[in-house]
Amino acid sequence: MKSTLKHLKHLEVAQTPPMGWNSWDCYGASVREEEVRAHADFMAENLKEYGWEYVVVDIQWSEPQASSTWYNAFFSLQMDEFSRLIPAENRFPSAANGVGFKALGDYIHSLGLKFGIHIMRGIPRQAVHQNTKIKGTDKRARDIALNNICPWNSDMYGVNVDLPEGQLYYDSLIELYASWGVDFIKVDDIANSYLYGGAHRKEIAAIQKAIQKVGRPMVLSLSPGPAQLTDGAYLQDHANMWRLTDDFWDHWDALYTMFDRCAEWAPYLRPGNWPDCDMLPLGHIGIRAHDGGGGDNWTRFTKDEQYTLMSLWTIFQSPLMYGGTLPDIDAFTLSLFTNKEVLTMYQTLTQRRQYYRDENWVVWHATSEEKEYVAIFNVSENEQAIPESLVSDLVPQGDFVYDLWHQQAILLSEQKLAPHGALLISL
Amino acid sequence: MKSTLKHLKHLEVAQTPPMGWNSWDCYGASVREEEVRAHADFMAENLKEYGWEYVVVDIQWSEPQASSTWYNAFFSLQMDEFSRLIPAENRFPSAANGVGFKALGDYIHSLGLKFGIHIMRGIPRQAVHQNTKIKGTDKRARDIALNNICPWNSDMYGVNVDLPEGQLYYDSLIELYASWGVDFIKVDDIANSYLYGGAHRKEIAAIQKAIQKVGRPMVLSLSPGPAQLTDGAYLQDHANMWRLTDDFWDHWDALYTMFDRCAEWAPYLRPGNWPDCDMLPLGHIGIRAHDGGGGDNWTRFTKDEQYTLMSLWTIFQSPLMYGGTLPDIDAFTLSLFTNKEVLTMYQTLTQRRQYYRDENWVVWHATSEEKEYVAIFNVSENEQAIPESLVSDLVPQGDFVYDLWHQQAILLSEQKLAPHGALLISL
Amino acid sequence: MKSTLKHLKHLEVAQTPPMGWNSWDCYGASVREEEVRAHADFMAENLKEYGWEYVVVDIQWSEPQASSTWYNAFFSLQMDEFSRLIPAENRFPSAANGVGFKALGDYIHSLGLKFGIHIMRGIPRQAVHQNTKIKGTDKRARDIALNNICPWNSDMYGVNVDLPEGQLYYDSLIELYASWGVDFIKVDDIANSYLYGGAHRKEIAAIQKAIQKVGRPMVLSLSPGPAQLTDGAYLQDHANMWRLTDDFWDHWDALYTMFDRCAEWAPYLRPGNWPDCDMLPLGHIGIRAHDGGGGDNWTRFTKDEQYTLMSLWTIFQSPLMYGGTLPDIDAFTLSLFTNKEVLTMYQTLTQRRQYYRDENWVVWHATSEEKEYVAIFNVSENEQAIPESLVSDLVPQGDFVYDLWHQQAILLSEQKLAPHGALLISL
Amino acid sequence: MKSTLKHLKHLEVAQTPPMGWNSWDCYGASVREEEVRAHADFMAENLKEYGWEYVVVDIQWSEPQASSTWYNAFFSLQMDEFSRLIPAENRFPSAANGVGFKALGDYIHSLGLKFGIHIMRGIPRQAVHQNTKIKGTDKRARDIALNNICPWNSDMYGVNVDLPEGQLYYDSLIELYASWGVDFIKVDDIANSYLYGGAHRKEIAAIQKAIQKVGRPMVLSLSPGPAQLTDGAYLQDHANMWRLTDDFWDHWDALYTMFDRCAEWAPYLRPGNWPDCDMLPLGHIGIRAHDGGGGDNWTRFTKDEQYTLMSLWTIFQSPLMYGGTLPDIDAFTLSLFTNKEVLTMYQTLTQRRQYYRDENWVVWHATSEEKEYVAIFNVSENEQAIPESLVSDLVPQGDFVYDLWHQQAILLSEQKLAPHGALLISL
Repeated sequence: MKSTLKHLKHLEVAQTPPMGWNSWDCYGASVREEEVRAHADFMAENLKEYGWEYVVVDIQWSEPQASSTWYNAFFSLQMDEFSRLIPAENRFPSAANGVGFKALGDYIHSLGLKFGIHIMRGIPRQAVHQNTKIKGTDKRARDIALNNICPWNSDMYGVNVDLPEGQLYYDSLIELYASWGVDFIKVDDIANSYLYGGAHRKEIAAIQKAIQKVGRPMVLSLSPGPAQLTDGAYLQDHANMWRLTDDFWDHWDALYTMFDRCAEWAPYLRPGNWPDCDMLPLGHIGIRAHDGGGGDNWTRFTKDEQYTLMSLWTIFQSPLMYGGTLPDIDAFTLSLFTNKEVLTMYQTLTQRRQYYRDENWVVWHATSEEKEYVAIFNVSENEQAIPESLVSDLVPQGDFVYDLWHQQAILLSEQKLAPHGALLISL
Repeated sequence: MKSTLKHLKHLEVAQTPPMGWNSWDCYGASVREEEVRAHADFMAENLKEYGWEYVVVDIQWSEPQASSTWYNAFFSLQMDEFSRLIPAENRFPSAANGVGFKALGDYIHSLGLKFGIHIMRGIPRQAVHQNTKIKGTDKRARDIALNNICPWNSDMYGVNVDLPEGQLYYDSLIELYASWGVDFIKVDDIANSYLYGGAHRKEIAAIQKAIQKVGRPMVLSLSPGPAQLTDGAYLQDHANMWRLTDDFWDHWDALYTMFDRCAEWAPYLRPGNWPDCDMLPLGHIGIRAHDGGGGDNWTRFTKDEQYTLMSLWTIFQSPLMYGGTLPDIDAFTLSLFTNKEVLTMYQTLTQRRQYYRDENWVVWHATSEEKEYVAIFNVSENEQAIPESLVSDLVPQGDFVYDLWHQQAILLSEQKLAPHGALLISL
Repeated sequence: MKSTLKHLKHLEVAQTPPMGWNSWDCYGASVREEEVRAHADFMAENLKEYGWEYVVVDIQWSEPQASSTWYNAFFSLQMDEFSRLIPAENRFPSAANGVGFKALGDYIHSLGLKFGIHIMRGIPRQAVHQNTKIKGTDKRARDIALNNICPWNSDMYGVNVDLPEGQLYYDSLIELYASWGVDFIKVDDIANSYLYGGAHRKEIAAIQKAIQKVGRPMVLSLSPGPAQLTDGAYLQDHANMWRLTDDFWDHWDALYTMFDRCAEWAPYLRPGNWPDCDMLPLGHIGIRAHDGGGGDNWTRFTKDEQYTLMSLWTIFQSPLMYGGTLPDIDAFTLSLFTNKEVLTMYQTLTQRRQYYRDENWVVWHATSEEKEYVAIFNVSENEQAIPESLVSDLVPQGDFVYDLWHQQAILLSEQKLAPHGALLISL
Repeated sequence: MKSTLKHLKHLEVAQTPPMGWNSWDCYGASVREEEVRAHADFMAENLKEYGWEYVVVDIQWSEPQASSTWYNAFFSLQMDEFSRLIPAENRFPSAANGVGFKALGDYIHSLGLKFGIHIMRGIPRQAVHQNTKIKGTDKRARDIALNNICPWNSDMYGVNVDLPEGQLYYDSLIELYASWGVDFIKVDDIANSYLYGGAHRKEIAAIQKAIQKVGRPMVLSLSPGPAQLTDGAYLQDHANMWRLTDDFWDHWDALYTMFDRCAEWAPYLRPGNWPDCDMLPLGHIGIRAHDGGGGDNWTRFTKDEQYTLMSLWTIFQSPLMYGGTLPDIDAFTLSLFTNKEVLTMYQTLTQRRQYYRDENWVVWHATSEEKEYVAIFNVSENEQAIPESLVSDLVPQGDFVYDLWHQQAILLSEQKLAPHGALLISL
């Protein structure tokens, strides 16, 4: 008898939620090879043992003149003869001579880590207007392009995957990435488009199909959000991660909104499917990035908000992709990523849901095979004791619970939470 | 260690999807006691062995003058001293002398079946405008009512369950129903309100809370649809069934729409949570009901459409609530409800999802612990052979599959499906 | 030859935009007869000569226990034998013995002013649940009521004006009001309903039809907003005023939003049709009203914002209904209502439109038969000089213009406008 | 004193609604010079005396390979050195040697007619990706382009008119068209974009500004619809015509929908502003066009529907742009365009509005300085006599009215209207 997993091979690739580092929050569209290597080095030495493993080069690595978050509209990109974008050699010197990302991938693998890249949905517009070749067919770029675009970046047109040659183009991309040793692909302009209403479903399926064809395990991560619940079942069946909101930055409003999104998306989690709360804009960010707060700075989240963020991301089991710099990371930020109690919870949960919600409090409840966890969030603007009704609902009177962040036994009835603060406990 | 199920007790009550009969499609708001008993008798004798068990009295059993689907706006309802609706004695003679539905419930239980009733969300408007009593408090109907209404029925106002006395009112209702031996409650005007946008969440929680308090296992079924996906996680945590569409009747358009709803809602199924495709308007319907086709008639679905309906409902694991008459049921309709192969699949699945979809074909795939099932639907207007690409994707060339409806081995490559027809197979 | 005006008789009643006083901003639902008389006295002595003439008693004058803005849900109202609400005698002593508002109306007329009342769309729910009589027919309240409601007030049900008896009910209302000498009717819950999507068109037409039947000139004013542009042509043909937004209070955000609404609604103005920016929450407000800022206070608008408000309302030709107290009005507020240059513009314009708009500036342009006017608004948060490009577009270099508020000649190129400030000029 | 018309110069250009012929309904994107000339010849001889005057060359006259309605995505267009599209010489031989449309324009003018062209909003994508020159500046196409597109045609990008060089590009276009003698410009992808929500307001203003600069009177017509009412006031102030719906074809559904659109847009008409119901798909259409019914055929409208269409278009005062062929026009179609009574009404109305509407009937009422007109439409599927209540509301009993289409006196009370039929009368 055949198993249903024949059709859901992609779930095998991320049995626990992916953890890693992504270049966007620090460098926008402009990260350079030496920066990527420096972050990989730090991760290998300090974070690998905790489960952190992906090093992801974000958007526009084929744009030679990219210098910040801001895209240069209609500029030329580095491209091979088959209409495929390749790394800009001035930014990624090891890519010269047709090597592409192979050398960088090899280096990251040599550290025991995994290599990820960002791509935009579609085929370069410059390929279409120059009508360049597609690998494996006489058809050309113009023949497979669709007149649809990304609203915020001018690089690509959509691909008509109803045509065999459209699928062939995506096959040729994934084949190239596999040859580079890519383990993780973040595809942008695909999980939600406000221009076209929802996910670009057909191209998602085509990309996953190409991944299955090439045979290399690759995590498929879809951006940007907000993904729509009406696409949820489809995303489960064709991807590993998808974004729940637009880009997440270090504002309380953005964090506050995430509570609703997590509550709604909780039914969609299963091994291999990890709805994505987006990168962690913590530590030192904004080196050459202008979104969010803008400018080179340290996260604007308070420490209480950072505990809240990390408690929500981990009890919900969002992927964890750090966005700040690693080489100069501070002790507090590092402590958020290296708490073994929290990470054990994070990697072993089997169920999780929002248990309670009112204007002041949000409570999540989750279970692993062995333990029961609760996260209590004070979403109000005031310091508050946890309401007695909540306490008595959660634990028998007088029972101690275990505070995961501070690794000590506490009495819930004695806790006050700071504004925007959180308590993450096991019962 | 405590289990999360402490908080999800309600899931225990419907470990497999509920199956039964409901009076609406035949009798609208006007069913009478002798009709209910006749249907229970038939079910006990002919369907109980196949898993059919609930006998549900639908809307307005407290309205003495109800004679069809059409509500008499602003008419008086039979009510007890505590603002609770009770059965109209002229329609339910055994309810006389304050017995309520106790006698009818006892009778149904004596047949080895279970008893269900319909209620509207809220408190009777007549109670509010007469300002009658609430059990267990000095507050009165006016004090706990909210100025919100059902758009299509003029009986009730909403209840303010932020007040302890609002919860008390729902407690007093469920206490009464428990005393009648009610096993299944279909609450209407609550799963979705186009007037107020989405589910009436607080009242859903209050009703479930009252059920947990009273301790009697009762299935909580919420109407009408379309329930919204944004409410999905909340509904999972507070109810057993919720409707995916507005009332379902015997038109292809309504059946066709259900494919999308099932695909979207599949991630929400688990033991105790059964998103509801609504009653089965099959066999002899419309005795005193005017919706759908209107009038006393046999279902307008073709036999092919009926196979399609039953295949989709069972592979998706919707609750099955027959809407037609039982005493005069015909052999074909009966065969749809008594196919052991189909019902075994229905009651043992552990996963199910839409596997493929285009303009002509819909394919579902599901697995139990032991078997793998596929449903293939021809949603076009023409007879069609199953496309070779689909066949080869599903079974090794030359392999036989097993046709559940016709209980025989077949070759997929040789099958032609009628317009709106279906094939339900195990691999 | 017949004139089209046969069909548009209602336009004759308000050839210039109505001006007056309304009790809501001061007294909410609770105004008392002596307060109304005191405001009428002041108006007759101090404002009548400037064109102010309507004295309007706002909502719930039939509710004996009303004491503030907050409605007592489901409370009893004073009603006559024909299901028509009549003034609460404890609040309006002169209404005793079946006199209704006749005595108050006579008093207001004796001062040379006009009398207005507020009503809710529909028929009292208490009439429907008691099934009381309708004048001129054997049908009763239950027979003509519709199961639709106002979302924020629990007094009424809609009326089925497709039935002759539904029209008859509205006829009986207007007949009663005409007998009281009512000159202005503000109908609420009718211009827009977010519950039912747009205007209650049929009841608007029924009320206007009743007004035409009774023959007394009455201004028909519809609330609440936001009226929708898709209803605009219909509102033009059946009413004199309709609200452009929800209740307007003394916040900049509300005033800022009004610029867009006025720009969009400008094409709908003509003699008899005056899209309504709502009451002026200026001076002393909130005596027993809780909306807006809440509490007994003076307007929170700065003086600059008050000039902006009055400039926009007058160049757009919104009705002017003062919401503050009159007996203790201060000199500045009074000056806003008694500027003859501004009021001459207001009452003589034949065209008006938004001429320019960017993030910092809004400019309106209007013409009367004799003059050309411009209003310049600084909608930014900073003091700013008027951009040179705007100045040169409006006047030949070196030309003086006339500042209406300060009644002096000025050079535009020398003007700086305060944040949220305005300049109203003739060219 | 300055007049407001200083700012509304564009209203002077179309004091009555424009009338003419447009190539789209017959030839799609592929009309050829000899076809345009043949239609101009016929118009000059047979229709000019009735007020028909514009000859409009519709979309893609710069695309050499255009052969039907279907666009060749991403194909090369004929363009001058300043990024401006020019006529494809293989289709418009007189355009050779840089003459552009000057020769064709001269010919049309020589017949006493006016010349119109269609353009797409924006700058050619090929110009942007080749980064070609802009007249009068060192900036190039890439510098002024915006990453926004038309959803259904791949020719252009938007222009950033916040930059002076963006305005300069539109100035250079209009200057070129003025040099060709263009009298009418239909700009497409501008009146409504479902991708970007509403009108592209800034580019509308930039085009009108360019027209005012160049000084030649040109009608500005904006497509496609549905224009949105929220843009209505803005469109009035910057254009002469704008489309009320998506492309109009010869289906009853499309005609039926137009009643609502006309009712809503009636307040926006004034001399110079003519909301546009789109071309008349009458007579012989679809020669090389595939939309609508598709294929070379005669209009699918019944004669009754054609009277309805023409009665609605003329009493509403929509522009009249014939879409069928002229050289082989039939007598009936020609009669619709040459009825002097109807056209006199059409060109002299000062007011018009929907007077009555129910499920079966729509009635419009309009007045000129001298006469009163009524159009009565039977929008049901059955032949019906005009309801007595309507008749008595419109004319004193026994009075004759004048039937404009059939030019005879009739008694309304004796008229039966065919399904989808109309009666156009003066009182």
